[in-house]
Amino acid sequence: MLTSGSATAPVTTVDTPQEPGPGQILVKINWTGLCASDKSLLHDEWAGFGFKMMDATKGIAGHEGAGEVVAVHDDVAQIWKVGDRAGVKWFVSVCRNCEFCTNGTDELHCPKQINSGFSTSGTFQEYVLTDGRYCTRIPEGVTDEEAGPIMCGGVTAYTACKRSAVRPGQWIVVLGAGGGLGHFGVQYAKAMGMRCIAVDGGEEKGKLCLDKLGAEKYIDFTQEDDIAAKVTEITKYGAHGCIVFAAAASSYKMAPNLIRPGGTVVAVGLPVDTSVLAGAPPVQLALQRKNIVGSVTGTLKDVEEALEFTSRGLVHPILTKGELKDVDKFIGMMLEGKLPGRAVLKVCA
Amino acid sequence: MLTSGSATAPVTTVDTPQEPGPGQILVKINWTGLCASDKSLLHDEWAGFGFKMMDATKGIAGHEGAGEVVAVHDDVAQIWKVGDRAGVKWFVSVCRNCEFCTNGTDELHCPKQINSGFSTSGTFQEYVLTDGRYCTRIPEGVTDEEAGPIMCGGVTAYTACKRSAVRPGQWIVVLGAGGGLGHFGVQYAKAMGMRCIAVDGGEEKGKLCLDKLGAEKYIDFTQEDDIAAKVTEITKYGAHGCIVFAAAASSYKMAPNLIRPGGTVVAVGLPVDTSVLAGAPPVQLALQRKNIVGSVTGTLKDVEEALEFTSRGLVHPILTKGELKDVDKFIGMMLEGKLPGRAVLKVCA
Amino acid sequence: MLTSGSATAPVTTVDTPQEPGPGQILVKINWTGLCASDKSLLHDEWAGFGFKMMDATKGIAGHEGAGEVVAVHDDVAQIWKVGDRAGVKWFVSVCRNCEFCTNGTDELHCPKQINSGFSTSGTFQEYVLTDGRYCTRIPEGVTDEEAGPIMCGGVTAYTACKRSAVRPGQWIVVLGAGGGLGHFGVQYAKAMGMRCIAVDGGEEKGKLCLDKLGAEKYIDFTQEDDIAAKVTEITKYGAHGCIVFAAAASSYKMAPNLIRPGGTVVAVGLPVDTSVLAGAPPVQLALQRKNIVGSVTGTLKDVEEALEFTSRGLVHPILTKGELKDVDKFIGMMLEGKLPGRAVLKVCA
Amino acid sequence: MLTSGSATAPVTTVDTPQEPGPGQILVKINWTGLCASDKSLLHDEWAGFGFKMMDATKGIAGHEGAGEVVAVHDDVAQIWKVGDRAGVKWFVSVCRNCEFCTNGTDELHCPKQINSGFSTSGTFQEYVLTDGRYCTRIPEGVTDEEAGPIMCGGVTAYTACKRSAVRPGQWIVVLGAGGGLGHFGVQYAKAMGMRCIAVDGGEEKGKLCLDKLGAEKYIDFTQEDDIAAKVTEITKYGAHGCIVFAAAASSYKMAPNLIRPGGTVVAVGLPVDTSVLAGAPPVQLALQRKNIVGSVTGTLKDVEEALEFTSRGLVHPILTKGELKDVDKFIGMMLEGKLPGRAVLKVCA
Repeated sequence: MLTSGSATAPVTTVDTPQEPGPGQILVKINWTGLCASDKSLLHDEWAGFGFKMMDATKGIAGHEGAGEVVAVHDDVAQIWKVGDRAGVKWFVSVCRNCEFCTNGTDELHCPKQINSGFSTSGTFQEYVLTDGRYCTRIPEGVTDEEAGPIMCGGVTAYTACKRSAVRPGQWIVVLGAGGGLGHFGVQYAKAMGMRCIAVDGGEEKGKLCLDKLGAEKYIDFTQEDDIAAKVTEITKYGAHGCIVFAAAASSYKMAPNLIRPGGTVVAVGLPVDTSVLAGAPPVQLALQRKNIVGSVTGTLKDVEEALEFTSRGLVHPILTKGELKDVDKFIGMMLEGKLPGRAVLKVCA
Repeated sequence: MLTSGSATAPVTTVDTPQEPGPGQILVKINWTGLCASDKSLLHDEWAGFGFKMMDATKGIAGHEGAGEVVAVHDDVAQIWKVGDRAGVKWFVSVCRNCEFCTNGTDELHCPKQINSGFSTSGTFQEYVLTDGRYCTRIPEGVTDEEAGPIMCGGVTAYTACKRSAVRPGQWIVVLGAGGGLGHFGVQYAKAMGMRCIAVDGGEEKGKLCLDKLGAEKYIDFTQEDDIAAKVTEITKYGAHGCIVFAAAASSYKMAPNLIRPGGTVVAVGLPVDTSVLAGAPPVQLALQRKNIVGSVTGTLKDVEEALEFTSRGLVHPILTKGELKDVDKFIGMMLEGKLPGRAVLKVCA
Repeated sequence: MLTSGSATAPVTTVDTPQEPGPGQILVKINWTGLCASDKSLLHDEWAGFGFKMMDATKGIAGHEGAGEVVAVHDDVAQIWKVGDRAGVKWFVSVCRNCEFCTNGTDELHCPKQINSGFSTSGTFQEYVLTDGRYCTRIPEGVTDEEAGPIMCGGVTAYTACKRSAVRPGQWIVVLGAGGGLGHFGVQYAKAMGMRCIAVDGGEEKGKLCLDKLGAEKYIDFTQEDDIAAKVTEITKYGAHGCIVFAAAASSYKMAPNLIRPGGTVVAVGLPVDTSVLAGAPPVQLALQRKNIVGSVTGTLKDVEEALEFTSRGLVHPILTKGELKDVDKFIGMMLEGKLPGRAVLKVCA
Repeated sequence: MLTSGSATAPVTTVDTPQEPGPGQILVKINWTGLCASDKSLLHDEWAGFGFKMMDATKGIAGHEGAGEVVAVHDDVAQIWKVGDRAGVKWFVSVCRNCEFCTNGTDELHCPKQINSGFSTSGTFQEYVLTDGRYCTRIPEGVTDEEAGPIMCGGVTAYTACKRSAVRPGQWIVVLGAGGGLGHFGVQYAKAMGMRCIAVDGGEEKGKLCLDKLGAEKYIDFTQEDDIAAKVTEITKYGAHGCIVFAAAASSYKMAPNLIRPGGTVVAVGLPVDTSVLAGAPPVQLALQRKNIVGSVTGTLKDVEEALEFTSRGLVHPILTKGELKDVDKFIGMMLEGKLPGRAVLKVCA
């Protein structure tokens, strides 16, 4: 079958995986999203943090796969049958037995977690063997090409909105609102009743945010010098929350100044520079009792919820479509900030 | 009457305040605590953050006063009567009408707040006119000399424990456990059912923390090179929360490494160096979904709760006693880290 | 000035209140809503619960007033000026000093609360003296005739939605969806991102709920025998929450069966029959860990939030308009269940 | 091997279960607790609620087993090894895939749950085959005879305390404080920092509650006519929470009157009479915004937490010890209210 080990190698042919082992299903990938972390892993940007593509992946990245179940092990036959539609995500498997798996909120911190395209080969290939107990069912009303990017990008935006603790009717600032994550974030925030201030660069992004995504206000950072002042003008005391999707040092520096006392900054974007901190001076953090929290993808249940918003017609992924061979091209566009929405690659014909 | 405008001036005599105006009571201060922020304000350490002792204070610091009501305006006569025992705290008054005063959690961010020893003259004087609607009643079972330091130090430690979101049976690390704030923090944490790892320097502090304050473990940073490793050894995955009472850059750097995924760092200590951040690299904060939050003093109700733990015999302030004239001496001891527990000054004979 | 002490007496003339006392403002009432509890109080339906119209009201009911400030006491001149628009609600005043006023969530349980049209004369009169510190500012974008019913009916529906703990994307059942409270409830639920199943009787109510209010499903109890089965069909396991606006024993009996395990029933409607319980057999409540909670009006801040949804164009009160003299007529329509939306009475010409 | 199918049959001999199947371990039961629900199931008291002992149990009740792992299937060999100590509880298995298993809080509502001594044979036998992925590890510092009753009685009391939402320093009333569940409840409440008012009958129970369990106050319902008045006297406004462990109609009637506005009643005890409701008149529930919630046993993680309090020496089960043949005798004592603490039966010699 075909796989892609880019950002270096051409599309190659490898053996198709064998029959599912205990707990496993075999998924034929129809479409896979291309995430900024694929780029980071392929380019070894996170080596400084101790993250390196491992041999286990055979160099196959990808964690936003969507396709069809083509084989099922007996012991998960109550969950899956051939022909079901399934999504493969960053969290391929968790142990379900450790403290984090059983405390009700923290399965994403399972020490035995397996991650697609990182500690096991990913979705940039035609067939993937995966844990049937942690694989995601794709509901009616969501196509495979939409479902792929929701497996990571969509759910990441959705859980970031939840982590912000912003309630319906309150203000949220989205930094990097027109990007692959941000365009999801604005839509989820709106669907959750929040009032959204989108921040990004350029007129085109402004139109996108206001006319298509549902932002109530747009701040163009290429035109506006003092974004904090602008946010204060709109919200009086600052927003109730702010999500940093942009992986820029300047965004992390600015974020705590965009929220009111008691507000929350959600750190999502991952800068390559290890010296960048998501934080604030203790005097500001303490006297204004602000919160700086991190968020990453989501649980099995979070992904189901994220998909449901799309099946209900409330969240529409904006897609730039290509094929497996386009990985490097799309990563290039990503680096230049010129990739509209989220890239998806057609895998199986 | 006598006042102290140190850290420079001697004890002086000024006019005794007049009769209470609308909403006010006159409190004869018996004892006042001496807080690290008194030191910071008197030494202008926070000028870089825009905080300066203002003319309104007449140079009179202090926000941990406890004493007796000696005069009451008619319109608060339903609340106070002469002879009642009253405590004066950092938050002397809030407007009770703004968004922060009415949203149920954020009165401490009232834009019209008045702060003792900062925007109005403080408790380093014999008589204080203060807002009867926001003044604290001292319950039976708490002496004035105990009540004073609870007005700021005690309640700050108590609310920090609440902000940590650590539940009974879970682990909390207290950095600066033997100090003026920390010795309160360990006791409140224990009374709230948490398991406390106290971190401070030296054997004496260790005895204090383990034998008197109720810590379950003590880590002596003068002996232990890798505090994070030690905390992991005790807690397996890191503590559930960590309170930074120590105003040291090294404490803020270490704190995020002491907590497990999903855990919370509470920033309380206020370093003078404006470049110190309470925070963590986005990769750590996001992937481990950690929380960095700030905490400062507490509301009127928080202070009542904090006092009740002392009246029930569960939290005992450790006091170094002196008089108004000892302000500079005690600040000197504080700077050297040699002031045991919390300093209190006898004001009225 | 004119007042109405119905449901018995004609509109009469009484002295216009004098100048505002300390903390007070004088409000000229433009419109007042007519609430089901006005009916209950005027008809002494709640005598069995110990609630009786008191002398203090001079028989003047009403707690949904909206109008203009015409006089202001000096000591609240920083909050109000003549010409401001103000709303008078059930909670006219709270003490702001007791445990409930200061614990951040429970001011509505202040033992010293004063209630409009119950422990003080209400809004069925041209001029009302009221506590300037607890009176509600009416924002731009909300007319007086809209603001009146939001003072109690609107905010009651809004806080019931909050109490349900239903999150965006989850299901809520509204019992009595087409009524004075329910029609608000459906709109707030939708604006908060919930998926709403409206339950009421008749085709007309169905059209209202689906086409105007934003319900996703409508169940006509005059046509559907097994409402629980229908809700299960829609939601698979039952709804996540259910608000009982209808003051019917049958609604309270049914409600716990409409929610899934872990779900919440919110009791709002107040049956006259003292033997009706909001509750469930312990076996059901315990094994399914359900929640039965009560909700009533809202705090000063809740009302501001409720108004803002209308000023943003998301919640539209449906009004049946009349004059002071129409109190008895409207109460009659209410008793027959034939009063569309919420009744408002024009007070000052 | 030996089993007991009482409350009718003598101890009998059945075949020892075979080798563990996929996911299973074989546990040799050392001690098993005897729960009031064993009594209810064996006596068919809950037939009216649709609960009947099923054929699958072969009439073998029991869900508080503790013993030693004697065989392990390969696929759970990473979790268990022969010789480990294991506890078998009411929830033997959940599917880990449904909405309730994955939403982080509700695995106890899994539609595919298997319950010990109800939908599969229980712990009143020498060897039990059970799901290794949901079986509980017994920590050091807890003996088997202690661990057994914690599997259901202990964890039920612990989660009820959590469900009460009572914070450290606040008041909780425990109805049935000296019984099999209640004696756990008082101890957990104290260990969690709550102030406990124990309610039960007789002087002996009073001594137990005050001297051994850690209650702060004791109310003897055989001596005190007006328990609500007594609770108000102690707490001023009523307690913050109340747990109903007693399965009596009178307890459920009284409970809502023992809590303050905003407080929470936790329903745990299960009356046989299907007409008993846990609830309150809507007027009381709404105007005082009270909460009536149910609680039942706990999750895998809850049980681990409950055990830890015992391993730390904070919660001591009070045990009445016997053998398998004593089931009927102990049930008799239970019915008369004369069984001290919790009954445990020695199973394997």
